[in-house]
Amino acid sequence: MIAVDWGTTTLRAFRLDVHGAILDQRRVALGVLACQGRFAAVLAQQIAGWDDPVIVLAGMIGSRQGWVEVPYVDCPAQPAELAAGMLQVTVAELPDRQVWIVPGLCQRGGQGAPEVIRGEETQICGLLTQLKLGRHVLCLPGTHSKWVGVDGQRIETLFTAMTGEVFQLLSEHSLLGRMMNRHALYDPAAFKEGIGRARQPGGLLHHLFGVRTRGLLSGLTADQSASYLSGILLGHEISSAPTAALTEVHLIGAPMLLQAYSQALQEFGIEVQVHAEGLAAQGIYVLATHRGLSAAP
Amino acid sequence: MIAVDWGTTTLRAFRLDVHGAILDQRRVALGVLACQGRFAAVLAQQIAGWDDPVIVLAGMIGSRQGWVEVPYVDCPAQPAELAAGMLQVTVAELPDRQVWIVPGLCQRGGQGAPEVIRGEETQICGLLTQLKLGRHVLCLPGTHSKWVGVDGQRIETLFTAMTGEVFQLLSEHSLLGRMMNRHALYDPAAFKEGIGRARQPGGLLHHLFGVRTRGLLSGLTADQSASYLSGILLGHEISSAPTAALTEVHLIGAPMLLQAYSQALQEFGIEVQVHAEGLAAQGIYVLATHRGLSAAP
Repeated sequence: MIAVDWGTTTLRAFRLDVHGAILDQRRVALGVLACQGRFAAVLAQQIAGWDDPVIVLAGMIGSRQGWVEVPYVDCPAQPAELAAGMLQVTVAELPDRQVWIVPGLCQRGGQGAPEVIRGEETQICGLLTQLKLGRHVLCLPGTHSKWVGVDGQRIETLFTAMTGEVFQLLSEHSLLGRMMNRHALYDPAAFKEGIGRARQPGGLLHHLFGVRTRGLLSGLTADQSASYLSGILLGHEISSAPTAALTEVHLIGAPMLLQAYSQALQEFGIEVQVHAEGLAAQGIYVLATHRGLSAAP
Repeated sequence: MIAVDWGTTTLRAFRLDVHGAILDQRRVALGVLACQGRFAAVLAQQIAGWDDPVIVLAGMIGSRQGWVEVPYVDCPAQPAELAAGMLQVTVAELPDRQVWIVPGLCQRGGQGAPEVIRGEETQICGLLTQLKLGRHVLCLPGTHSKWVGVDGQRIETLFTAMTGEVFQLLSEHSLLGRMMNRHALYDPAAFKEGIGRARQPGGLLHHLFGVRTRGLLSGLTADQSASYLSGILLGHEISSAPTAALTEVHLIGAPMLLQAYSQALQEFGIEVQVHAEGLAAQGIYVLATHRGLSAAP
């Protein structure tokens, strides 16, 4: 089968054998935003030469801005329930193939705002095959960091923090960005100071201003400022995340983010289990199997 | 004398009589950023026809990006100490005039980051002439909101929250902005919901994401989103401001900001005394008098 992780900015295609092992993979900067109105053509081109009958897409391709909006499945949900929410699309450009799109997850109700994820659910399903039974907290850092509580094979709670996007906005467009070399190397000492600052009173909107005043008056350099800001933001994210009695977090993500989040979590006394990004293909395989599309081994 | 409030984006000039009353005023969008390298020429032009011998400038004109960097005066400080920190500049284009620039205030030390204000100190000095002795908390909302603790005639503590700038970044450049009509009318009900959300657990980075999910799933309209986001940000600012045993705040600012901050503070059970923006000229007059530049009445 073919598994495709099709997000806002990137398309990653994987060719899998009947056991879910990756035979081949391709990656291209043709995200959902760049492919409006020509999804079928782009897909056909990206999987050219792969003749597998089943194609399963996941990520923002199933959102309102994507190919077909696949309704969210409500939490708590097991992989089988996610699989039951998959939608098939008919693609004239790909005759004799089955093309399916995976839904996202949502959490409604409560006093606050709803929660949603779309794309990360495949990585979560991939990791669930590796975790021992019981309760776990997963953290998937990124533009929007996702914190996910699981119990056994059930995805129970979702929590989003806009940490990555806020970092990008502040470093590119704010007054703080003018004093900052945002391409500087990660500075663990400045990062740690930022985490410490986040744990003091005053709140995030106040702590942010300290990036400027420490640059003006306390010798924080342009090279250190980005790491200090990053520490402030991650410190606030972790302080507020649903971490009741939390002693261990499973981190899934890109290497640079994992380094920063690992250091930050350890500053909070939380142990970290690190998992690489490649879980999406495995999760899509799990969902296809639940749907009866793939011959389970 | 002539008092000039010269900020990042705007120059406001006031002609004052010997009692500090405003005889005439001018306003032009020639801020410090737009006038680099030609401050003397711009000033001469803006005060053309006013032949008063004393000219006192305040605001970002005294910053590193301004005409001359006037060192910050340390808090706690009385108006007389601010006046003692004023610097005179020689201006060939304005012979037979004295041109002075007012310093900003800073607060060093402590475990956190330093604090600074530059520009707001004149409004504070203006208000101090109207306040009863004793302790007061002042709030000056804006791009960077300033909270100032005063005791008698002494400016004791400074606290900055980047609320206005963060609102602008999120509404103009973020994913939230795409779903938002940021020119919509102020919506008191959506604003109140945002304040309520800020007082729930989860932290600011999490609450921000709710602007998106409530738009996706709970019927928050594009017209309501800006007010809801504003409520979240002001709620976080007020929750974290140094408001120990706070029962009353003196608000100084533009009418639209005063409306929002008044509503937000009242939601927190804090009484509000509202003061219009025109205090800068009065404060500059107070400082000039302390410096012996103006004949006190």
